[in-house]
Amino acid sequence: KKQYRIAVIPGDGIGKEVIPEGLRVLEAAAKKHGVAVHFDHFDFASWDYYEKHGEMMPEDWKAKIGKHDAIYFGAVGWPAKIPDHISLWGSLIKFRREFDQYVNLRPVRLMPGVPSPLANRKPGDIDFWVVRENTEGEYSSVGGRMFPDTDREFVTQQTVMTRTGVDRILKFAFDLAQSRPKKHLTSATKSNGISITMPYWDERVEAMAQKYPAVKWDKYHIDILTANFVLHPDWFDVVVGSNLFGDILSDLGPACTGTIGIAPSGNINPEGNFPSVFEPVHGSAPDIAGQGIANPIGMIWSGAMMLEHLGEKQAAASIVGAIERTLGERTLRTRDLGGNADTVACGKAVAEMV
Amino acid sequence: KKQYRIAVIPGDGIGKEVIPEGLRVLEAAAKKHGVAVHFDHFDFASWDYYEKHGEMMPEDWKAKIGKHDAIYFGAVGWPAKIPDHISLWGSLIKFRREFDQYVNLRPVRLMPGVPSPLANRKPGDIDFWVVRENTEGEYSSVGGRMFPDTDREFVTQQTVMTRTGVDRILKFAFDLAQSRPKKHLTSATKSNGISITMPYWDERVEAMAQKYPAVKWDKYHIDILTANFVLHPDWFDVVVGSNLFGDILSDLGPACTGTIGIAPSGNINPEGNFPSVFEPVHGSAPDIAGQGIANPIGMIWSGAMMLEHLGEKQAAASIVGAIERTLGERTLRTRDLGGNADTVACGKAVAEMV
Ligand SMILES: CC(C)[C@H](C(=O)O)[C@@H](O)C(=O)O
Ligand SMILES: CC(C)[C@H](C(=O)O)[C@@H](O)C(=O)O
Repeated sequence: KKQYRIAVIPGDGIGKEVIPEGLRVLEAAAKKHGVAVHFDHFDFASWDYYEKHGEMMPEDWKAKIGKHDAIYFGAVGWPAKIPDHISLWGSLIKFRREFDQYVNLRPVRLMPGVPSPLANRKPGDIDFWVVRENTEGEYSSVGGRMFPDTDREFVTQQTVMTRTGVDRILKFAFDLAQSRPKKHLTSATKSNGISITMPYWDERVEAMAQKYPAVKWDKYHIDILTANFVLHPDWFDVVVGSNLFGDILSDLGPACTGTIGIAPSGNINPEGNFPSVFEPVHGSAPDIAGQGIANPIGMIWSGAMMLEHLGEKQAAASIVGAIERTLGERTLRTRDLGGNADTVACGKAVAEMV
Repeated sequence: KKQYRIAVIPGDGIGKEVIPEGLRVLEAAAKKHGVAVHFDHFDFASWDYYEKHGEMMPEDWKAKIGKHDAIYFGAVGWPAKIPDHISLWGSLIKFRREFDQYVNLRPVRLMPGVPSPLANRKPGDIDFWVVRENTEGEYSSVGGRMFPDTDREFVTQQTVMTRTGVDRILKFAFDLAQSRPKKHLTSATKSNGISITMPYWDERVEAMAQKYPAVKWDKYHIDILTANFVLHPDWFDVVVGSNLFGDILSDLGPACTGTIGIAPSGNINPEGNFPSVFEPVHGSAPDIAGQGIANPIGMIWSGAMMLEHLGEKQAAASIVGAIERTLGERTLRTRDLGGNADTVACGKAVAEMV
């Protein structure tokens, strides 16, 4: 029987506080469903490590974590201490690029006990996935500055879309849509304004759609699409977007369902050539770090996504069910959701209900 | 006493239906406040014109409308008949570029009678401006495709930010913030992911802020900023963003206040070297065109913005007041807002209350 090897990286701030709760729940689910998991702990990809070593990760970081079955990641970044382009580009974005995690997958689901900022929406009304391209697009490193410090100064940055990059994310999204009861895919575009890359994106969507006759699909310009997330969140099933559009939609979506504080995400290499990274959508939250009040649900739910990715569907489902039951009890929710549990109490509650 | 000369361009679809109501209200307000306005009507920048002439506008379009005090514009575009890159880039975006309308200004205001999709928000709670850069940024025409129809195919498109372009929009936004009671400016960025142009934007914001010590300012990455529009719309006063970010925020904002159907906008050349264009945020809406049911409020409110721009503050304010009173009456609102008035009845109601 296979034993999964998971690399655990808490990172910074509340990452360090939510990881233990995530592990507690993973262990409970693994035990209950007879899944064998082994955890290896790493201290790099953090400000502490950077302070000691002058770099975010050791030179042989790929050797250290590249053979694991998955990476369970807390949060990285502490803007007051270290600039984003070092902390994020030296860890999170490096993983995405160098482990070719070209899918960023995030659920948008209204959960029991979580008040939605939208009027008259209840659990069940909002339940879709955002599929984000995670390696190219608007996050390219091609560009530069000319005539610095003069009136003629200008900067440029290229958006880059490759056939390989666009087609593989669309394939993933269409496959996901096809596997769901509604079989509905929505593509985010802006071809009326961004006149070169976005029409290309549309063209590839149309080509891919040919191969999925069972999938109904539509497209919206990103401006009106964000409006429709607020006005008609029930319209969506699978939403696919470029790196930037996916980034926006996968924060806006969780906000529409109440809070980004509980949203999970997977940075996935579907072929399994490299480990995938599972992390909460929230960041390291320096403002509340160290107080023991962070909401661990995003981390725990990311663990469920990790088990799902590994093929352990039952264990994954039992965690999601336990999250729903925990959120449904005011005394077990954390304070950001109007409850009165602290991080550990909330984590223990989920672990017990698994 | 000055007589204002306004170029009127209905364009396509419901543009043709809402323009007459906009003019009705403008005439009523002008009469009441002793403002002299003359309207010149133009049929170009429309599908009809294109069908007849094979182009969106006559060659001498600048001579025809370039000396007017402002342009009052309905809506353009009819994707089923004519591709966006011809209709939009041949009119709307041409105006913005060639008349150097570098400010796109849109109010986000929760109005009486308009149900907000957000829970527990009432008129007065949401009241801010989105200031969008309107000539450069992500809407550049620099880029292209290589290795077409092969597996190596890729496309690139540059985002271009010039010192001139960035500084002048920031100056406009800081001036606006300084003129308001809250004196609060929020900048939309994404410097943690878009690592060349966005840090430049941040740098210019910081430099400009030095000149406005009375203005409190902050910045958010666009992903969490869209989330905060939904979760905390009361946080904002003036929000400034690049062409793309401003585009997104100025659809999302109006959606949070109930509908993009009533939102107005100005495409402004603040120096007055060229006429500014005032148009509703909604498009030509082919699906409801010809039925007489379109909501004319976006067009009417755009007229108020036009008068304000021309310096006729009282006439402008009287229109906004009349809009509020009209929206407050169920029988005077159009059907999209749960009322039962048609386009003309709603327009007449506003004109009477001016
Ligand atoms: C029609 C389109 C090109 C335009 C834009 O993106 O600028 C529209 O969305 C707007 O906001 O005026
Ligand atoms: C931290 C930042 C670079 C990152 C992104 O934009 O990809 C984050 O917002 C995310 O969504 O994971």
